Amino acid sequence: MGRGDIIVLSAPSGSGKTTICRALLARVEGVVLSVSYTTRGKRPGETDGKDYYFVSAGEFDNMVKSKEFLEYACVYGNWYGTSRAAVDAIVASGRDALLEIDVQGGRSVKASAPEAVRIGILPPDRETLKNRLFGRGRDSRDEMERRLEAARQEMAELKMYDYLVVNNDLDTAVRQVEWIVRARRLRRERTANAVDRIL
Amino acid sequence: MGRGDIIVLSAPSGSGKTTICRALLARVEGVVLSVSYTTRGKRPGETDGKDYYFVSAGEFDNMVKSKEFLEYACVYGNWYGTSRAAVDAIVASGRDALLEIDVQGGRSVKASAPEAVRIGILPPDRETLKNRLFGRGRDSRDEMERRLEAARQEMAELKMYDYLVVNNDLDTAVRQVEWIVRARRLRRERTANAVDRIL
Repeated sequence: MGRGDIIVLSAPSGSGKTTICRALLARVEGVVLSVSYTTRGKRPGETDGKDYYFVSAGEFDNMVKSKEFLEYACVYGNWYGTSRAAVDAIVASGRDALLEIDVQGGRSVKASAPEAVRIGILPPDRETLKNRLFGRGRDSRDEMERRLEAARQEMAELKMYDYLVVNNDLDTAVRQVEWIVRARRLRRERTANAVDRIL
Repeated sequence: MGRGDIIVLSAPSGSGKTTICRALLARVEGVVLSVSYTTRGKRPGETDGKDYYFVSAGEFDNMVKSKEFLEYACVYGNWYGTSRAAVDAIVASGRDALLEIDVQGGRSVKASAPEAVRIGILPPDRETLKNRLFGRGRDSRDEMERRLEAARQEMAELKMYDYLVVNNDLDTAVRQVEWIVRARRLRRERTANAVDRIL
């Protein structure tokens, strides 16, 4: 059995990334979500070890020093990191590790694991992006402007990703991500043993 | 609109390659079969310009000399070639050019068009391969042995292909080739303009 893939899924805020990840996990067998470590506070409804591993700044810093992270980044003043050992365990078992991380993290993963497959989710157009960003209604005007500018920068970075999926329609977008994940499993690296079995 | 892909589909004889190609063309919009040139005689039921362009050895030789072929190869004493101009016209229009060619041809295409995507179709096991090869019942024992050895060599070559699909079940195999073709369309090279449209 070959190693699984590291699948990085990134999107500007409000592009439906989390919904797509959940739908993908429900639809495609053998995809496992990598749970990130974070120093940000737990929000209502979140569970430690499921949504994130919630750790203190000191604990996070120790993990950074002992190089336990495949990537880590600071977003809006909080730290987020992906455990290298956890991802290794998933792909070594032949399953795909799904990393739902931002573009900063995506860039770091590509640097430390060049074989990672990066998929960017895009909003269908600028208006939709604005509506989604501003529709949350819990941020100040300044915060919204900051988010819009961040989203623009994120999208420019997404142009470096391996695959881009436009989230016009959720079902179609999920199906497209599914094609990418399933096609990767058919690559030579993961199927060449089928030839040996026949010869 | 980005350029389409050159999709090479190869398989040992009797692995269901032609059936898979037909099903793919029926299922996935925007895939166009590249019609090969050949010096072999037209078989009953074949149409010139649809199954092959049937040409004389002299005509074929002239095309070779004027470098009109993306690949050409001799198989069982007959020459087969893929017109570079025809393939270019298809991919320039944003559609995918499907090349149903043997592994010799696949190797040549990869050399002259490294961006080509090569998909190998494999029989599920050695017994099935033998049954398929020998089930045709129109070849001599020597011819059958020759075909089996050729199939073994072809499969070893297929290990260098980008993707491998095991044809256990025709519907599944067609769906897998479909995932590969559709996933390719989501690659950065073909979708980055979606980012520009938003920014």
